[in-house]
Amino acid sequence: MRVSQFFLSTLKEAPSEAELISHRLMLRAGFIKRLGSGLYTWMPLGLRVLRKVEHVVREEMNRAGAIELLMPAVQPAELWQETGRWDVFGPQMLKIKDRHQRDFCFGPTHEEVITDIARREIRSYRQLPLNFYQIQTKFRDEIRPRFGVMRAREFMMKDAYSFHADFASLEQTYQAMYEAYTRIFTRLGLKFRAVAADTGAIGGSGSHEFHVLADSGEDAIAYNPDSDYAANVELAEAVAPAAPRPAALQALSKIPTPGKHSIEEIADFLKISPTQTVKTLIVEGTEGPLALLLRGDHQLNEVKAARLIGQDIRFASEAQVRAVAGCSAGSIGPVGLSIPVIADRAVAAMADFVCGANEDGFHLSGANFGRDLPEPTVADIRNVVAGDPSPDGKGALDICRGIEVGHIFQLRTTYSAAMGCSYLDESGKAQTMEMGCYGIGVSRIVGAAIEQNFDARGMTLPETMAPFLLAIVPVGYQKSEVVRETADNLYRELLQAGIDVLMDDRNERPGVMFADMELIGIPHRVVIGERGLKDGLIEYQGRRDEAARTIPVAETGVFLTNMLAT
Amino acid sequence: MRVSQFFLSTLKEAPSEAELISHRLMLRAGFIKRLGSGLYTWMPLGLRVLRKVEHVVREEMNRAGAIELLMPAVQPAELWQETGRWDVFGPQMLKIKDRHQRDFCFGPTHEEVITDIARREIRSYRQLPLNFYQIQTKFRDEIRPRFGVMRAREFMMKDAYSFHADFASLEQTYQAMYEAYTRIFTRLGLKFRAVAADTGAIGGSGSHEFHVLADSGEDAIAYNPDSDYAANVELAEAVAPAAPRPAALQALSKIPTPGKHSIEEIADFLKISPTQTVKTLIVEGTEGPLALLLRGDHQLNEVKAARLIGQDIRFASEAQVRAVAGCSAGSIGPVGLSIPVIADRAVAAMADFVCGANEDGFHLSGANFGRDLPEPTVADIRNVVAGDPSPDGKGALDICRGIEVGHIFQLRTTYSAAMGCSYLDESGKAQTMEMGCYGIGVSRIVGAAIEQNFDARGMTLPETMAPFLLAIVPVGYQKSEVVRETADNLYRELLQAGIDVLMDDRNERPGVMFADMELIGIPHRVVIGERGLKDGLIEYQGRRDEAARTIPVAETGVFLTNMLAT
Repeated sequence: MRVSQFFLSTLKEAPSEAELISHRLMLRAGFIKRLGSGLYTWMPLGLRVLRKVEHVVREEMNRAGAIELLMPAVQPAELWQETGRWDVFGPQMLKIKDRHQRDFCFGPTHEEVITDIARREIRSYRQLPLNFYQIQTKFRDEIRPRFGVMRAREFMMKDAYSFHADFASLEQTYQAMYEAYTRIFTRLGLKFRAVAADTGAIGGSGSHEFHVLADSGEDAIAYNPDSDYAANVELAEAVAPAAPRPAALQALSKIPTPGKHSIEEIADFLKISPTQTVKTLIVEGTEGPLALLLRGDHQLNEVKAARLIGQDIRFASEAQVRAVAGCSAGSIGPVGLSIPVIADRAVAAMADFVCGANEDGFHLSGANFGRDLPEPTVADIRNVVAGDPSPDGKGALDICRGIEVGHIFQLRTTYSAAMGCSYLDESGKAQTMEMGCYGIGVSRIVGAAIEQNFDARGMTLPETMAPFLLAIVPVGYQKSEVVRETADNLYRELLQAGIDVLMDDRNERPGVMFADMELIGIPHRVVIGERGLKDGLIEYQGRRDEAARTIPVAETGVFLTNMLAT
Repeated sequence: MRVSQFFLSTLKEAPSEAELISHRLMLRAGFIKRLGSGLYTWMPLGLRVLRKVEHVVREEMNRAGAIELLMPAVQPAELWQETGRWDVFGPQMLKIKDRHQRDFCFGPTHEEVITDIARREIRSYRQLPLNFYQIQTKFRDEIRPRFGVMRAREFMMKDAYSFHADFASLEQTYQAMYEAYTRIFTRLGLKFRAVAADTGAIGGSGSHEFHVLADSGEDAIAYNPDSDYAANVELAEAVAPAAPRPAALQALSKIPTPGKHSIEEIADFLKISPTQTVKTLIVEGTEGPLALLLRGDHQLNEVKAARLIGQDIRFASEAQVRAVAGCSAGSIGPVGLSIPVIADRAVAAMADFVCGANEDGFHLSGANFGRDLPEPTVADIRNVVAGDPSPDGKGALDICRGIEVGHIFQLRTTYSAAMGCSYLDESGKAQTMEMGCYGIGVSRIVGAAIEQNFDARGMTLPETMAPFLLAIVPVGYQKSEVVRETADNLYRELLQAGIDVLMDDRNERPGVMFADMELIGIPHRVVIGERGLKDGLIEYQGRRDEAARTIPVAETGVFLTNMLAT
């Protein structure tokens, strides 16, 4: 493509609306143009990137045996009423009335539509399993759309839905999708993790989120840099310390701690580490109050604790605390408490710890389980922190942030049962189908990839998703015949070799052309100028290279073709 | 692709809802599945066809220098309010309120959105001309969706919009689009015509519709089978007869025609051809009633007549007719009328004609202009009929029916002026841009093509849009090792040659497989069976061939590759 026949529209400054680097760069590079809140036009340059992502997704879905179809964006309410989601989906669903006042929505997802197709099309176990997918426009009416295409209202999604005769078949396809997603994000050159996700009622290994790792991500992820273990911080298991509890060495003693309430204040005051302290939280249990014990530097994980005690976490009021412990919240401790006590695994391994004395203005030091208070119930009730042992036993966890770009889920029979989606088994008996669903945020990937691939000059996109693979920048294309001829010849040679090349044939200053090609993230660049040509040389530089190198003109075509042809 | 890994779902009978052959065949072949009124899922087989159409459209748009982008489906009302179309578009526009009660629509077209982009992105004449296009989902809330994908509510459209510094540039792009459309429909193997369309206020050559010719079309088209002339019947010029008016031979005489009113009744009664009669219609003019004269077998063209008299056609009431002519409508004639008379060109060339006598129950015969009544004003006010001379002077017209699949239009400054879309010219002065727009009904093309390409056994799709190019039908694939091995080898060989092949590896009776492959319109088929293989032969048959022919197994790969590789 020649720039003169394309539409390049870069900006020096990003509009002030953009917070994230990817959003700023996409606006500056002219990838997208805002139409309204959460609505973006994919401009020619951005669309090329989107299509490249789409291409990789499609290839890998096909390779994994999924079959593409295309469902309507507009969906009748009746199907959503069958599953009950018409009423519970909430205001994210864009509801529509047609000219006859019938109810529709702009589909935020397609479980109902595909299940309706499956129940009408699939009769026999012989037709199963089947995995259908589409790459299609969705709408979710976010209350606060932001971050450009990362949290747009209208967006492009790959959604797949699989149908099975039994759970074993679902697990097989789920695994195939896990592997396809891994190939997709690997081919797109992304640093990512598959993260075990909360499956709610389903449990087990029934759901994984795929996160692109980036500081701007909205989700905190615990991962093992030395293995493929990863989980949402809220779900990552905090394993028990490997070392057994040390022997008690100190005597229990009561220390005045006037005006000191928080762990930080106590540790400062006593000149000890917070890791030597235990904090006590009183929460409402199903049969009265409970005490939860955490090491001073740890945080309660409410998801784990709620699962343990069987209801959402509600902290005791000031009055309740005083009734139970006889003091304010800053001085509670487990010694002498008459309510059940649950200690985090890390607490259970402590000896000679500091805790509240259940008396305002006092703490205890040298406290020990089994001597000063009974052995507690032990459970995992905290968030993991960086340095914790990895649950897979292969080293230590690190914490990072991630952008969710994919999600695979074992739906089981949630939708098929509600909608009567069944097949006849080998004995002719109707059975409800098992289902899985598998989503990828195709347009979000573009933003997420940029969050991982940029520098001060602009985007540094991976080859698989850059708008063009190579830029030819002739200096003086309009003025110098030798430059023009050399550039045109190289351009033709590369086009013939099937290389996706952009030729900057504008009448611009070199600095403007260099800045544009760098901003829009083209991975490879050659510069052709009169000065170099006098010595028979042109310049090549990779987008991430520190410096350019020169190559003899005669060898340039072969050099680039060898490097870039796949 | 192997059928066992694909989703084939054919029906013996089409659902009763389908009127058109294309709709019936698309449902039977499992190309589409109805979700709701005017809403269709493109099933895997149909989607392949849709994508092939899309591919040809995209290639030719790119070749013609158009630049692809992708605009949102959901559009804010504000833009439509700027052009005034929010209020006048009517109930075809699907209006939506978001969670904040702001007004949006599901875009039925994108003039406003692209003009908004152009006015923000294009500054200088140096950037012009530009031609942007997208292939995207549209919604028009048809009051009576029907004919499957031909008049669906949600559909896929290619819409392009061009921007220009002056009209000459618009005309150039318009011509390039005309040629691109011609290439697209030619490559898709369609019998089509570019039809001059009514441009309303714009006039000239400012609009063409592209029609696929098919008996089921909703539009009547006059075309010249020997040239590329074509026009909507309502717009085709009825040229004056080549031969001059004959000399008057008969005397004027009044004939009793009791109870005879219509042209057919009069012609029957007098045993003459309707072509010897003249019918007289009284309509309201801007300055009183007018008489319009048509040959008995011709029909008034209200569009032409309205343009001539400067207002919509309103026929005179019974009372008005009696006031003007002194008789009822069945006996009016031009002789002796005191109101202005406009004769169609065909009437002006008649002599010795029969017409009403302006007296109930009587007609005149042997009437002649210049002798019995004044020479009339002459104009083209009728619909053309088959056999009329072609306006391009190259033979005679024929009439057929067409399905509109494309429309190109010189918008001029309608939208750019309303939305302040201007550029700076060479002297730095702001000028309003000229605009063109160019649409193709991508999903409609699939239906229209089937209307042209079917037989008793199913679809006979052109190679460029068939779901697969070739079917391999092994007889006894699951039972016979030699059949399986031969089929698998051929399948691999063709795949490697890049041929889009479907291998029917099902355990079905041959008749079922043949019927399916024919129904879904695969252009080429080979049959591999044990009997033929004994003699080293396999069978080949083109979808439109009368009979199969045998080919030595060893030569089959080369034979097919040569025939099918492009």
